[in-house]
Amino acid sequence: MYVAVDAMGGDHAPEVVVQGAVEAVTEFGVSVILVGDEARLREILGDRRIRDRILTAHCEDFISMDEPPLKAVRKKKRASIRVAFDLVRDGKAEAVVSAGNSGATVAAGVLTLGRLKGVERPAIAGVFPREAGPVVLIDVGANVDCRPAHLFQFGIMARAFASSCLGLRDPKIGLLSIGEEGIKGNEQVRLARELFEKSNLNFIGNVEGRDIFAGDVQIIVCDGFVGNVALKLSEGMAEAVRKMLSKDLRSSFLGRVGSRLAQDSLRNFQEKLDYEIYGGAPLLGINGVGVVCHGDSSPRAIKNAIKLAADYVENRLVEKMSTELKELLD
Amino acid sequence: MYVAVDAMGGDHAPEVVVQGAVEAVTEFGVSVILVGDEARLREILGDRRIRDRILTAHCEDFISMDEPPLKAVRKKKRASIRVAFDLVRDGKAEAVVSAGNSGATVAAGVLTLGRLKGVERPAIAGVFPREAGPVVLIDVGANVDCRPAHLFQFGIMARAFASSCLGLRDPKIGLLSIGEEGIKGNEQVRLARELFEKSNLNFIGNVEGRDIFAGDVQIIVCDGFVGNVALKLSEGMAEAVRKMLSKDLRSSFLGRVGSRLAQDSLRNFQEKLDYEIYGGAPLLGINGVGVVCHGDSSPRAIKNAIKLAADYVENRLVEKMSTELKELLD
Repeated sequence: MYVAVDAMGGDHAPEVVVQGAVEAVTEFGVSVILVGDEARLREILGDRRIRDRILTAHCEDFISMDEPPLKAVRKKKRASIRVAFDLVRDGKAEAVVSAGNSGATVAAGVLTLGRLKGVERPAIAGVFPREAGPVVLIDVGANVDCRPAHLFQFGIMARAFASSCLGLRDPKIGLLSIGEEGIKGNEQVRLARELFEKSNLNFIGNVEGRDIFAGDVQIIVCDGFVGNVALKLSEGMAEAVRKMLSKDLRSSFLGRVGSRLAQDSLRNFQEKLDYEIYGGAPLLGINGVGVVCHGDSSPRAIKNAIKLAADYVENRLVEKMSTELKELLD
Repeated sequence: MYVAVDAMGGDHAPEVVVQGAVEAVTEFGVSVILVGDEARLREILGDRRIRDRILTAHCEDFISMDEPPLKAVRKKKRASIRVAFDLVRDGKAEAVVSAGNSGATVAAGVLTLGRLKGVERPAIAGVFPREAGPVVLIDVGANVDCRPAHLFQFGIMARAFASSCLGLRDPKIGLLSIGEEGIKGNEQVRLARELFEKSNLNFIGNVEGRDIFAGDVQIIVCDGFVGNVALKLSEGMAEAVRKMLSKDLRSSFLGRVGSRLAQDSLRNFQEKLDYEIYGGAPLLGINGVGVVCHGDSSPRAIKNAIKLAADYVENRLVEKMSTELKELLD
């Protein structure tokens, strides 16, 4: 099984992407097809090419971060993200990983592989590390404006994802709003709430921003604008906290002594706040596996995202999601 | 100068509110008028009534957390939040503090004191603690749906607030979106961006969720839905981080030793993440000073919110905001 990696996507492509892919192959035993400018890829790979485990697929073009996604995807047939999804469509790979323009990844996925039946808008699911186990936030950026029915579909997709890939049975689903009372929130949220209440999903009602970390909800549904702000805010805060903590502990003598003694605890703590362990976020609702990474992903993040993509394939995510959608929407 | 305190507003009213007010009077030397059921207030106050420094104003009614704000404010003329603003209108107090239904606080403020010229929608400004100094997020909950012109006005109000009350000179203003590129974000954000670009404000363009903690922007403009989610998310995360940290450090022997030695650093660190030091968030755009607190505010949060309200009055926040609005909108 091969994972197609968009080697030209991301702020530090192709070097960092190739590095992450090599690490994934070495560490996790997955196989990859690097999609991009073959001459450059070969140069970066050097003697690290592992026979049959790292292939390359050549393409001339790529989509940059600031291009309008839909237009670029339609126009650039030989862009790396399109060629990557073509490999999946043609049965040569089983998943796509990209740190490039996430709007373009969504558009290319939909255009090439199509949507699952019952899904109007594919969405990106962000997984947040939490003391009490992970929480899934959906959508974290694929859809800026959503209708209530879209939000409801996001809930179903995230449920299938959480049960097949995160081991969460009948996860509790909440709708992100600005007050737990039903009357609060905007029109979109109020109408989506009705759809969830009529369903047989484990819907617990509205949740608030604080429940992402403090609540016992396991899936939180919101539109892609709010979700993207929330995801990036928490990543930024986690980073700020880690920096402050290191600095504060180093700044006093007692802190220095204490810090050394407490370093195991601190490392443990910092790992819990570390978003790189997830590496990427699954694009749900297309007829295939896609994983979206940050533009500024490190090799470690890319490596973990490739592992995730392989896991989703092994867990038959798409098949299970398709079944759940059928059951819940029929 | 008296601060009118809505003693019946909040999850733990009136006990916790009265406690916070007493602490504010004792610690900061401010004077308050507690608005609510006088018999109950006197009972709670007991012998802590400080002559002339803690007055009471009786009213029979209050607005609960789950009432539709506008309707309740119009109907309940003798609700504590309305009577509190009446005291300001009648010159008996100079600011209002409430931990009650925040929508009702906004509605009562507008109804009783009116809006400043040029302001269509008053907004609540959240102040986030940060290593590099505070950042103001506006709106954090007064307006669920906003037009581009409202977002622009939020920026002007926050600027006046930041310069008069936080000592930030010509603060950098960013528009919260889901990508730094101008083409990203929803329609509302794209149009608001044009208004900011045409102005002579220190506008730095779109910012993302991560910039709230990691960026050097000082004012971040967004609608009240997104802002409320962001505020509560970061509060929830700060709390989760503090809990995790204490637990992790206690859980290992080395951690325990280290923790004791590093306790000064940790306390310092935890205080940086402590939202209670701000206590409340200013309601900007009404013709007077209002401070909105969390429903579950502690006495310490209430105490600090009362101090803030008094500071805003002393800093002549409303007068300065009025001048800036006139200059920038004429």
